[in-house]
Amino acid sequence: MTTIDSIGEFGLIDRIRTATETPQQPGTIRGIGDDAAVFALNDTEYGLISTDMLLEGIHFDLTYTPLKHLGYKAVAVNVSDIAAMNGLPTQITVSLGLSSRFTVEAVDELYAGIRAACAAYKVDLVGGDTTASRSGLVISVSVLGTVPKDRITYRNTAQPNDVVCVTGDLGAAYLGLQLLEREKQEYLANPDMQPSLSEERAYLMQRQLRPDARTDIVHELRDLDITPTAMIDISDGLSSEILHLCRQSGTGVVLFDENIPIDDQAHLAATEFGISALTAALNGGEDYELLFTVRPQAFEALKNHARITAIGYLTADPAQTILATRAGQQTRLRAQGWGGTGA
Amino acid sequence: MTTIDSIGEFGLIDRIRTATETPQQPGTIRGIGDDAAVFALNDTEYGLISTDMLLEGIHFDLTYTPLKHLGYKAVAVNVSDIAAMNGLPTQITVSLGLSSRFTVEAVDELYAGIRAACAAYKVDLVGGDTTASRSGLVISVSVLGTVPKDRITYRNTAQPNDVVCVTGDLGAAYLGLQLLEREKQEYLANPDMQPSLSEERAYLMQRQLRPDARTDIVHELRDLDITPTAMIDISDGLSSEILHLCRQSGTGVVLFDENIPIDDQAHLAATEFGISALTAALNGGEDYELLFTVRPQAFEALKNHARITAIGYLTADPAQTILATRAGQQTRLRAQGWGGTGA
Repeated sequence: MTTIDSIGEFGLIDRIRTATETPQQPGTIRGIGDDAAVFALNDTEYGLISTDMLLEGIHFDLTYTPLKHLGYKAVAVNVSDIAAMNGLPTQITVSLGLSSRFTVEAVDELYAGIRAACAAYKVDLVGGDTTASRSGLVISVSVLGTVPKDRITYRNTAQPNDVVCVTGDLGAAYLGLQLLEREKQEYLANPDMQPSLSEERAYLMQRQLRPDARTDIVHELRDLDITPTAMIDISDGLSSEILHLCRQSGTGVVLFDENIPIDDQAHLAATEFGISALTAALNGGEDYELLFTVRPQAFEALKNHARITAIGYLTADPAQTILATRAGQQTRLRAQGWGGTGA
Repeated sequence: MTTIDSIGEFGLIDRIRTATETPQQPGTIRGIGDDAAVFALNDTEYGLISTDMLLEGIHFDLTYTPLKHLGYKAVAVNVSDIAAMNGLPTQITVSLGLSSRFTVEAVDELYAGIRAACAAYKVDLVGGDTTASRSGLVISVSVLGTVPKDRITYRNTAQPNDVVCVTGDLGAAYLGLQLLEREKQEYLANPDMQPSLSEERAYLMQRQLRPDARTDIVHELRDLDITPTAMIDISDGLSSEILHLCRQSGTGVVLFDENIPIDDQAHLAATEFGISALTAALNGGEDYELLFTVRPQAFEALKNHARITAIGYLTADPAQTILATRAGQQTRLRAQGWGGTGA
């Protein structure tokens, strides 16, 4: 008897992948092991499919999660997997497990968020399944997408000397979760209190409750005619994701801590909680930004981009996975989730 | 506040479909409302996608469901939706929510069944998601498939005078469930007892625990160059499914009760339980046979087929939905599930 905890989620996925047979279908281009699976579509494009499941009590807490935001997030986290292949989403299916406490109006709220996300990402809701649940809300979304064959971007094709880039900023979703959890505890201790969540904290909470997928970056990279050498989305924290990319590409990495983009609100909240904003950025997860690598010459066209930051470079030695400080100190990157809500 | 029970699962699906916008993607051919959604693939074929979620305590009971069978069934019920479009499956994704009582060995068993089904239906397992669950086992499968454009078969394209056909036999899965539930109650009352499930009952239990999708029929219809005018799979019981097909096609129907194929074992078990085998066939569900209609002239080529039975014909009057007995009695068809485990 082996507990799942003893091998971990990634151990389990490796076990499933290893035991999976050689493809039987000529249309299967790439299976388990990237952000999305790849299948034959037509002469110029590949098809993409990805799926994510969100469970009440594991991935979200309905005491502070508006259902409309949750519906939006369920779509966005799936779209993010398509963006991570340098693709754009086309259709989604949504399956819901609903316990008896959910009303039709609650389901309407959830779908209002799902539809808002469909409009934002130009995807069509084409199917799904609804069923009773004995145990809270279950949301399972699958997303289809397409990508031109010459633009598809895997995790395992980065090369030494590539520049490592991230979009947006990191750590805010994790700090937003801390704020929401603190409010919940205070509310439980004193139900008469007024919420103290200030306007300034809106950004952090929005990053946690209603994240967006970076399809904008996919469009911009196409406009600039840049195809990353490798890409992955940041769902489990920067450390974990860059280590996936390096392991699958057979490279090492040097990241510079001072380059990692962190929003001012995240710095302030981290100080308030007495934790490191850098640690939140490295291990917090749920930012749904894109982490990608480009050849040094391609980076020229990106270096003044407002929403793309170079944070390091890849090396030829797979054993070298390092975070360097301005002072010259080096620490080893570790994939240590904080046991957050990582979707 | 409106309870979901008050509008029912189909009411909820109608509500979701009605509120769903016009497709934004030119590649979306058909959305919610059939066994699978249809998307643009290439010059000669359409792509198909369908999804089904199975929840512990709602769709299966692990006291008598072997995990290997459950894995097989989770794939088969999805493949059945592709077969119902006259298509063949190509890839699946599997998402699992696992509570802490599941061991790695238990997950291996589940995947052994998933892989057995993948081999049987020639589909590739290309992705998925695994996550902790606070509440038992959650299995969400999505399946991709393809169908030649000139063979795609919807639910809403049947015509008056079409012959109504079913594959295999009906009601056995429901009676298998009754046997398993009875054994469970007897075991709970007396844990020392020996199971009395006889060899002869193996067929009924297999129909419940490890059903197969009728991709064989899809192949045979192609070999015979017959394309049904409409098709649906029987997951919720014959009555419910024929009423869907008629409502969406704008036709009525006359079914002949004596023609409905019921296995001898199902007749015997029904007698033992003191229930009507015909009612089990009409309302039991989970048989995963195909219900389809063909033009009268096309039926000539099927009339001696061992696994296809003509059970009635369609009429022009949508209000006429009738079950006729040999004695000439007519009763109205009703979509009354038995509150079973209908996936």
